Amino acid sequence: MKHKAYKANIIYTPTPAAFEVVPHGYVVVDDAGKVVTVSNALPTQWAHIEVEDLGDCILIPAMNDLHVHAPQFRNQGLAMDLELLPWLETYTFPEESKYANVAYARNVYSQFVRELWRHGTMRASVFATVHRDATIELARLFHKAGMGAMVGLVGMDRNCPEAVCNNAERMVNDTHALIDAVSDMPLVSAIATPRFVPSCSPTMMRAYGDLVAREGLPVQSHLSENHSEIAWVKELEPEASCYADAYRRYGLLGHTPTFMAHCCYSEGEEEQMLLDCGVTVVHCPTSNCNLGSGIAPVRRFLDCGIGVTLGSDISGGHHLSIFRVMQYALQMSKLHSTLAGGREAFLTLSEAFYMATKSGGSHFGRVGSFEPGYEFDALVIDDATLCDGVTPSYSLLERLERYVYLGDDRQLCRRYCSGALIPDPATRQ
Amino acid sequence: MKHKAYKANIIYTPTPAAFEVVPHGYVVVDDAGKVVTVSNALPTQWAHIEVEDLGDCILIPAMNDLHVHAPQFRNQGLAMDLELLPWLETYTFPEESKYANVAYARNVYSQFVRELWRHGTMRASVFATVHRDATIELARLFHKAGMGAMVGLVGMDRNCPEAVCNNAERMVNDTHALIDAVSDMPLVSAIATPRFVPSCSPTMMRAYGDLVAREGLPVQSHLSENHSEIAWVKELEPEASCYADAYRRYGLLGHTPTFMAHCCYSEGEEEQMLLDCGVTVVHCPTSNCNLGSGIAPVRRFLDCGIGVTLGSDISGGHHLSIFRVMQYALQMSKLHSTLAGGREAFLTLSEAFYMATKSGGSHFGRVGSFEPGYEFDALVIDDATLCDGVTPSYSLLERLERYVYLGDDRQLCRRYCSGALIPDPATRQ
Repeated sequence: MKHKAYKANIIYTPTPAAFEVVPHGYVVVDDAGKVVTVSNALPTQWAHIEVEDLGDCILIPAMNDLHVHAPQFRNQGLAMDLELLPWLETYTFPEESKYANVAYARNVYSQFVRELWRHGTMRASVFATVHRDATIELARLFHKAGMGAMVGLVGMDRNCPEAVCNNAERMVNDTHALIDAVSDMPLVSAIATPRFVPSCSPTMMRAYGDLVAREGLPVQSHLSENHSEIAWVKELEPEASCYADAYRRYGLLGHTPTFMAHCCYSEGEEEQMLLDCGVTVVHCPTSNCNLGSGIAPVRRFLDCGIGVTLGSDISGGHHLSIFRVMQYALQMSKLHSTLAGGREAFLTLSEAFYMATKSGGSHFGRVGSFEPGYEFDALVIDDATLCDGVTPSYSLLERLERYVYLGDDRQLCRRYCSGALIPDPATRQ
Repeated sequence: MKHKAYKANIIYTPTPAAFEVVPHGYVVVDDAGKVVTVSNALPTQWAHIEVEDLGDCILIPAMNDLHVHAPQFRNQGLAMDLELLPWLETYTFPEESKYANVAYARNVYSQFVRELWRHGTMRASVFATVHRDATIELARLFHKAGMGAMVGLVGMDRNCPEAVCNNAERMVNDTHALIDAVSDMPLVSAIATPRFVPSCSPTMMRAYGDLVAREGLPVQSHLSENHSEIAWVKELEPEASCYADAYRRYGLLGHTPTFMAHCCYSEGEEEQMLLDCGVTVVHCPTSNCNLGSGIAPVRRFLDCGIGVTLGSDISGGHHLSIFRVMQYALQMSKLHSTLAGGREAFLTLSEAFYMATKSGGSHFGRVGSFEPGYEFDALVIDDATLCDGVTPSYSLLERLERYVYLGDDRQLCRRYCSGALIPDPATRQ
């Protein structure tokens, strides 16, 4: 790769408070795929490099999905009439059990990775299943596509059907196999993935604690998603002072980067614990709506300094597009504020965009912004079909907002990950 | 037109309680565009008629949008950071003022009608503006497209900028002009459209009361959308016992078919009044989320016997697809139930589908179902791109649910209104 510049309408969020907008500006990317500079005019020292002129397109950082269940891909948009626990029993576990079959896994996981690509998500933190070979296959598919991922082999050994269970020993061995497998995949890594407290016995949790301490693996799981789940955890782990404490007691809360999905009902002691342990909340508003879980208090998390990112959480969530998830984050924030008597500030578009880009990307390296040194993960949006030829035309920020609310994969004309143009994964498999 | 049969996977909702599913069945449509019968096999007396084989496609009734602001089309997906009243002042009224210019109106209204078509909405109840010529142009565009509409010339004479105001006399004269203009448009009619109480003086309301009594026009307006609006109405109409009563007192609640959008906070006396007056509630959940208005108690309305339909309400709503609105209706129903301590049943998919089809369509004649005598308003869905070639394949109802949550206009391959195949309106204008 040589140095190269991209000319386009550049929009990104160095901070959540505001968009940085550079109309018809240049991003210079070095031979390692990292941003050197963004500027209005091509700096003289780069006058000789290749410039790719993207015309009137918008160039933004690519999307990052910090919570998604790959083996639930076939259940997307299905069975939306159930609450979390019966939904797991009736739809999710039976589908996940099929991943014992690697051929099945390869087929559906290929479609899953392609669909992430289609919607502009270049990095994802993914739950697979308990099945080693299928999970390694998923990692391989990300690698082959040139996309980034933290891939989690799931651990679960109680309160679930035999076919989707493993045990602590198998989980440890299989996670080691996954770590080995991804060692030569630069954009893919392994993440410790205890499903959630109700599925993990103390033995499993202790095994995770040891593994994480030894290998320095990041951790992802679920936390305080809905009322019945929280009550169940209280019953299962009576000595834990709150749901989060049931992870903390086993060394699974903040010893390494830790991502907890949902947190709809994290408050008081638990909220303080998330802050103290530096846990990242993964907000999954589409899922929380579909399963009727509730509305996470995102504004409060941000105000007290807890990091928040976004997750599609398919198939609790119905759609892989993180732009769609952004819409719901904004909408749920407004409803949350109204239900609280209007005393809470809504999330703004730049805050939601920051969650999806710079906040989400920060867990994959320096990803999610166009500041110097960031890996060039980017989307090129040709939104001509969303503009209408009427004057005065839309401003650049209006065009971005309209893309978030009205656009889809049809307007995404190029996708870059770590400096490389990423073609349709279907053409590479 | 001659009798004709369509062969496809037929799905519709004669009642809200359940889908009627006829795999590879036949709909026979007569020469007037009305459904004669739906059956598993082609009845012998129709053995000679033309059969259009739609293969493995799904055939459903077309969508009906009972609350949509055509002149807000350009504001779709914009300015989502404001609550109702400031949003009206800052974005909506300035845009609506442009419709004094008929050329502007023709340009944007053409795009609006085409976009309704694209998303499978064959009938709509539409707010235009106070401008006569632009409103007649909108009616003409629906007629030319072969699509159904109730078109409303808006009345408003207080609390809004001069450029979007009329007065009672102009409203009455211009509505008569609209009634004349649509008299030779079989699928288009006029609807009385007082914007909402804060915009309409007692003089305007009385003029509407007289007009509706004289002409038998249906009525559409807004009701109990958010807290500040409700408080304002209480101030403006101190003698009204509730917001709905401020319409009732002028003969604008149920003397003729009456559609009230939102009703997020209609309860007690107001709810009883809606029931007693036979008012139809138009549920606009995308809009209610975007503007942080709240969640309408739809389950309670249905349980007490109030009719409920769906509206996209652009540009409070961000998207014209009634399938998208269905998603939000289901999701908001789940959140509403959870916030009420889980003591309320969610809406089911068949209930939401019924609202969008048979309930919504009932206000345009016998529309929205495939029962005998219904006008053949239909969509053909080719969802092959949403199926994944994995066996076992999805059931027909699963395919429909996945289309609702994951599909878009790309899967809609044909659209029928009142028996006629409706081509892209852009090819007819």
